[in-house]
Amino acid sequence: MNITGIVVEYNPFHNGHALHASESKKATNADLVVAVMSGNFLQRGEPALVSKWSRTQMALASGVDIVLELPYVFATQHAEIFAEGAVSILSAFGANSLCFGSEAGDIQQFLRLTSFINENETTYNSFLQEALKEGYSYPKALAMAFKRIENSEQILDLSEPNNILGYHYVKAIFKQESQMKPYTIQRTQAQYHDKTISSLGIASATSIRETLIKQGNTLEAVEHVVPAYTFNELQSYKKNYTSFQHWERLFPFLKYKVLTATIEHLGNIYEAEEGMENRLLDVIKEASSFQELMEKLKTKRYTWTRLQRFCLHTLTNTTKNDMKNLNLTCPYIRILGMNNTGREYVNHYKKKIDVPLISTISKLKHPFIEIEKRATTCYALGYDPIIQNKLMKEEYAHPPILV
Amino acid sequence: MNITGIVVEYNPFHNGHALHASESKKATNADLVVAVMSGNFLQRGEPALVSKWSRTQMALASGVDIVLELPYVFATQHAEIFAEGAVSILSAFGANSLCFGSEAGDIQQFLRLTSFINENETTYNSFLQEALKEGYSYPKALAMAFKRIENSEQILDLSEPNNILGYHYVKAIFKQESQMKPYTIQRTQAQYHDKTISSLGIASATSIRETLIKQGNTLEAVEHVVPAYTFNELQSYKKNYTSFQHWERLFPFLKYKVLTATIEHLGNIYEAEEGMENRLLDVIKEASSFQELMEKLKTKRYTWTRLQRFCLHTLTNTTKNDMKNLNLTCPYIRILGMNNTGREYVNHYKKKIDVPLISTISKLKHPFIEIEKRATTCYALGYDPIIQNKLMKEEYAHPPILV
Repeated sequence: MNITGIVVEYNPFHNGHALHASESKKATNADLVVAVMSGNFLQRGEPALVSKWSRTQMALASGVDIVLELPYVFATQHAEIFAEGAVSILSAFGANSLCFGSEAGDIQQFLRLTSFINENETTYNSFLQEALKEGYSYPKALAMAFKRIENSEQILDLSEPNNILGYHYVKAIFKQESQMKPYTIQRTQAQYHDKTISSLGIASATSIRETLIKQGNTLEAVEHVVPAYTFNELQSYKKNYTSFQHWERLFPFLKYKVLTATIEHLGNIYEAEEGMENRLLDVIKEASSFQELMEKLKTKRYTWTRLQRFCLHTLTNTTKNDMKNLNLTCPYIRILGMNNTGREYVNHYKKKIDVPLISTISKLKHPFIEIEKRATTCYALGYDPIIQNKLMKEEYAHPPILV
Repeated sequence: MNITGIVVEYNPFHNGHALHASESKKATNADLVVAVMSGNFLQRGEPALVSKWSRTQMALASGVDIVLELPYVFATQHAEIFAEGAVSILSAFGANSLCFGSEAGDIQQFLRLTSFINENETTYNSFLQEALKEGYSYPKALAMAFKRIENSEQILDLSEPNNILGYHYVKAIFKQESQMKPYTIQRTQAQYHDKTISSLGIASATSIRETLIKQGNTLEAVEHVVPAYTFNELQSYKKNYTSFQHWERLFPFLKYKVLTATIEHLGNIYEAEEGMENRLLDVIKEASSFQELMEKLKTKRYTWTRLQRFCLHTLTNTTKNDMKNLNLTCPYIRILGMNNTGREYVNHYKKKIDVPLISTISKLKHPFIEIEKRATTCYALGYDPIIQNKLMKEEYAHPPILV
């Protein structure tokens, strides 16, 4: 069987994602598409609109054969760690290729850049440190270091977010000596950060979320940019869970946490640096919403995403100590769901998978799983008690979804 | 000037409290009544129905001349520490007497018991330890130790809650070599724990709270048992603050805290003992309300109050380390409010007061004040953002109320 892997968040699943899954299958000539998907919290440091189970359902209904979970410890990190975690899971699961969407759309650019950086690692690193010292944010510093090292000959435009992510996938594949062959397909139309919905059937997940949360939850406004199954799932999620999840629902807990913790404790939160905790403490006192907090926190040095992740780790009580020994290869694989083709593959291949394959997390003890549970608890606390309990039980005892 | 001191919670102020103030004045032949009052959290480990400012207004309107704050570190403790803190404040403030309500109503019984215990301290302590080892709760063990030492001759009935508290006031007066003379007046009619409201104009604060919170907030039901000023204040508080404060409003934060903290952290919370933190962690997972939590937590060994205080310290993040060097004499006096008579006394007497007299807490740095601020933050977080900010600003910058 020829398996291709994709790395996704599906927040929520939309037409562009369906296209990505089918094109990845075609481009790699695969029999099966396996997606590694972030759980309840995402790379930008925010909660997913709907739970991991709901998003798994959406994916399985629209061309994905197996959904694996990217644990919190990888999913809520900057591109490098995010990519390392995802690549390690897909590799261990036996994928033959990894296919990502990018603005560049040409795998040669990624391969050339990777070997170029490998050959010039020392110079590159010193440029990176230089740019960071000059006060640039990490993504900006990264792009600048590339620019300086390339000395006017640009191999790949790293100011584009999906190009950066793609570069890290390719880099991780080489670093981990993965069997996977990297592919890329061109991203079409909607850009990652677009906040409005086009009428063309493809919209960014960001614009879909904005529409669903900020413009009064008019579900119909997104109907033409998501598969019918997603639309139904969103409808029933909203009905059953009363609301989509977003930061504002979790903000009271963040505020409580920051205002009652000691400053030493806040300084030990993962990603706290250079007195960020003092700033958070100062600003949150006056903030009445998460949006207001973030606007007041934002500085030139730290990106919105960077600060949002720090807020998230504060909320979930993820400390530097928790992450101290973060191994960049994932120590287990959690299956969130699969269809028949997926199940056949798993039954056939599971003996060759070196890491534990878990169906319910209560069956394995691991520090990452403790963090996962804590994160889900926080996600659940944004809801009323009955839904809280439902979400928490799902986390502990939900078997993989079979369709 | 002859000053009498009283120790109060006023949760809320009612006709019985007005009687206590006026009878204390009469019994001690005082010119002025000074009340030391718990702040936002009370001895039973629960939030006050209305803020400390609102309760101060009620007291000043009904016969109390000065209201001083009993800090959180004393106010949320068992009888002995509670009494020590209150007595130290009244002594430092220059009160000539302390007058408490009791079931016994005869000060000789308290004086005799105090000297009897003093003379038999070693035996008494060993009886107390014995009863605790047998698995009795602290108040029960106390009563049993007294019973055993008195050897069938009962000096004072310590199964009555106000007698116990009174005994600790008298004991603290002797221990601190206070200039205050102890007095007691008989408590009338309503018992502390009564949960229904009598038609006689005197009801326990417990029954008033139950009526206000549990039976659908029908304010009129308590009109005949509180002074007119209290009634109006309760009405306007409910209007301005949208709701009375109670544990259920704070429960989501407690649940969040317990489910995200490490077990080591919970074990370091003040009053955590014998794995109480493990039990709390286990039970809170399934609890959808504070009431449900408490019912499931309750055991023979620990009283409701004991457990409720542990929950409160967990909420406010008050640790064993915070309380490690708890000095049993209060290091400052905070005036919450006074009338003209009170102001004259303060102006006249303030040079003789040895501890700092503070009008707004932002003017003094002290670990107790840090704890006070944290407690107020928790109290405030039970409300919506606008009211939150109002309550927090009041805590930092409110000058004493002058009437």
